Amino acid sequence: MINAYAAMTPAGSLVPFTYDPGPLGSDEVEIQVAYCGICQSDVSMIDNEWGRSSYPLVAGHEVVGSVARVGAAVSTLHAGDQVGLGWHAGYCMQCTQCATGEHNLCLAVQPTIIGRHGGFADRVRAAAASVVPLPADIDLTRAGPLFCGGITVFNPLLQYAVQPTDRVGVIGIGGLGHMALKFLKAWGCDVTAFTSSASKVDDALAMGASHTIDSTDPAALARHANTFDLILSTVDASLDWGAYLGTLKPKGRLHFVGIPTQALELNVIALLRSQKAVSASPVGSPQAIATMLAFASRHAIQPEIELFPVARINDAIERLRSGQARYRVVVDMTASNNAGFSSTSLRQG
Amino acid sequence: MINAYAAMTPAGSLVPFTYDPGPLGSDEVEIQVAYCGICQSDVSMIDNEWGRSSYPLVAGHEVVGSVARVGAAVSTLHAGDQVGLGWHAGYCMQCTQCATGEHNLCLAVQPTIIGRHGGFADRVRAAAASVVPLPADIDLTRAGPLFCGGITVFNPLLQYAVQPTDRVGVIGIGGLGHMALKFLKAWGCDVTAFTSSASKVDDALAMGASHTIDSTDPAALARHANTFDLILSTVDASLDWGAYLGTLKPKGRLHFVGIPTQALELNVIALLRSQKAVSASPVGSPQAIATMLAFASRHAIQPEIELFPVARINDAIERLRSGQARYRVVVDMTASNNAGFSSTSLRQG
Repeated sequence: MINAYAAMTPAGSLVPFTYDPGPLGSDEVEIQVAYCGICQSDVSMIDNEWGRSSYPLVAGHEVVGSVARVGAAVSTLHAGDQVGLGWHAGYCMQCTQCATGEHNLCLAVQPTIIGRHGGFADRVRAAAASVVPLPADIDLTRAGPLFCGGITVFNPLLQYAVQPTDRVGVIGIGGLGHMALKFLKAWGCDVTAFTSSASKVDDALAMGASHTIDSTDPAALARHANTFDLILSTVDASLDWGAYLGTLKPKGRLHFVGIPTQALELNVIALLRSQKAVSASPVGSPQAIATMLAFASRHAIQPEIELFPVARINDAIERLRSGQARYRVVVDMTASNNAGFSSTSLRQG
Repeated sequence: MINAYAAMTPAGSLVPFTYDPGPLGSDEVEIQVAYCGICQSDVSMIDNEWGRSSYPLVAGHEVVGSVARVGAAVSTLHAGDQVGLGWHAGYCMQCTQCATGEHNLCLAVQPTIIGRHGGFADRVRAAAASVVPLPADIDLTRAGPLFCGGITVFNPLLQYAVQPTDRVGVIGIGGLGHMALKFLKAWGCDVTAFTSSASKVDDALAMGASHTIDSTDPAALARHANTFDLILSTVDASLDWGAYLGTLKPKGRLHFVGIPTQALELNVIALLRSQKAVSASPVGSPQAIATMLAFASRHAIQPEIELFPVARINDAIERLRSGQARYRVVVDMTASNNAGFSSTSLRQG
């Protein structure tokens, strides 16, 4: 049996929930969960924002832990390995995307918390192909957010071959954006943070930005015409995207990893004159995650987190909902005050 | 003096117009015009659609002819050289774009028919950097449309490193689209023509398409989900772009070389799930034009044209306005019935 925390109704508080996961699949891994980050999409699923939720719903898809046991066909992971699991818990392994290392674009991809149960639990299962070993020196309390928020902002740097000579802007300094600043700083880029929050300016500069711009000030945007090779938008706000296109250099790219609440309204002429592009991408492949972890380890890049014991998991979710978290919320699933769980402690290295 | 045909008022008929071009600039070339294609943007300028026209206005920017004389500093072109001139007649030669071979993206680029006079004339001037020599074996009557319409659809193949293994769709089989089909066929791609005109289906198949799809049939688009690596849109119509995004493979690109009359309305989620992109581009650099000409020569690619003598230049423009031209309109500026001109004949090879 797996001891989890589940929402029983849309937007409901999480309550202890025990379920029988059945026999372990031959290609699966069962992870003893140590820490699990909370992502905005956990909240979206709990609230059934996308109409894809079924209840009881066990969210949690920024999982760090150790392999408890592996299926009969799993040869690359072993009990005791320290691993992480993100938004995807399985791939078809047969489509063109899977066959070319683009598993995150698999058309039959299996999200960790849609149609299966996630990491707000003592254990979670996933296909071995989706479970990525952790570098030995990583801080386990902080590693979880790398597996969804982190890879979401890191993967575009791989996908579009961002150069250290590039000037890159990041819109929104929150859970995703603050990790983007850290990655881009280590990547060698000239980094600008676009934020509407004056209270985040000092943090943004400390985390890797060389410049900050008020994201809501049209005059500031106009002053930065023809400046950026790439802008990563991490926000769900609907900004003046035409003004942002104006800040791109010729051949520049406005790339979305956050989903604005309103459809983009784009004049083609704003793209055409200087051959600009608008694009978007979801998380990353397991290999991209491994590449990110090695880079993060080598550059000592860690998310900024607020850590909650699992007994306070509902407080943790409320903290995320408040928009006040600095900058990512993680739940300690090993905490002794987790009375309902019979967890064993995580093997440390 | 240069003998031209000019619009004297917005949307007015062209009438003979003689002007003094002044001394030839040291970096300039004067071209004896043999043939000049008519492009939709000539009509837009004649009609002052963009608010950038001043009158008398001499349009014409798909020029083929021979070098009449060169400025003192011009060393790469010589009198008698067969050359062409497209949408751009000059570049700043100093910006990053010019310094990296991206002259068509120069922020101070000089269009051939904005603020200067174009190719509906016996002679036209342009900076030597914008004038491209013609291959010896090219058909002069048909070469003009390559210099604007042709390069506009060819350049994306270079810019995005289109592979012969790619499946490419072309929306709109007109002046631009028909050249795209021919280029893509020679490029080795699997080519699909999207057209709303049943009368163009046979032509599209003859010109290089392996498949045609009714561009206005939602069911046909739905049947082709996950099919194309690249779609080039050449139309000014506002189609169901979300449906077209659905026909792209993961990592596919919807690229605009035509400007829809209405702004695009795009849901980021339609881009994000499979890392798709929307982009647009204008014509190409002089080097890209030279590359295109060599490719067109090697593969015997020629635009399909309707040829008008210059005395019927207004009929030629009306023919373009009618939307009935198959597929590009060219004016013969050497025609003997050009009574108002004292043109000399073009050197043939």
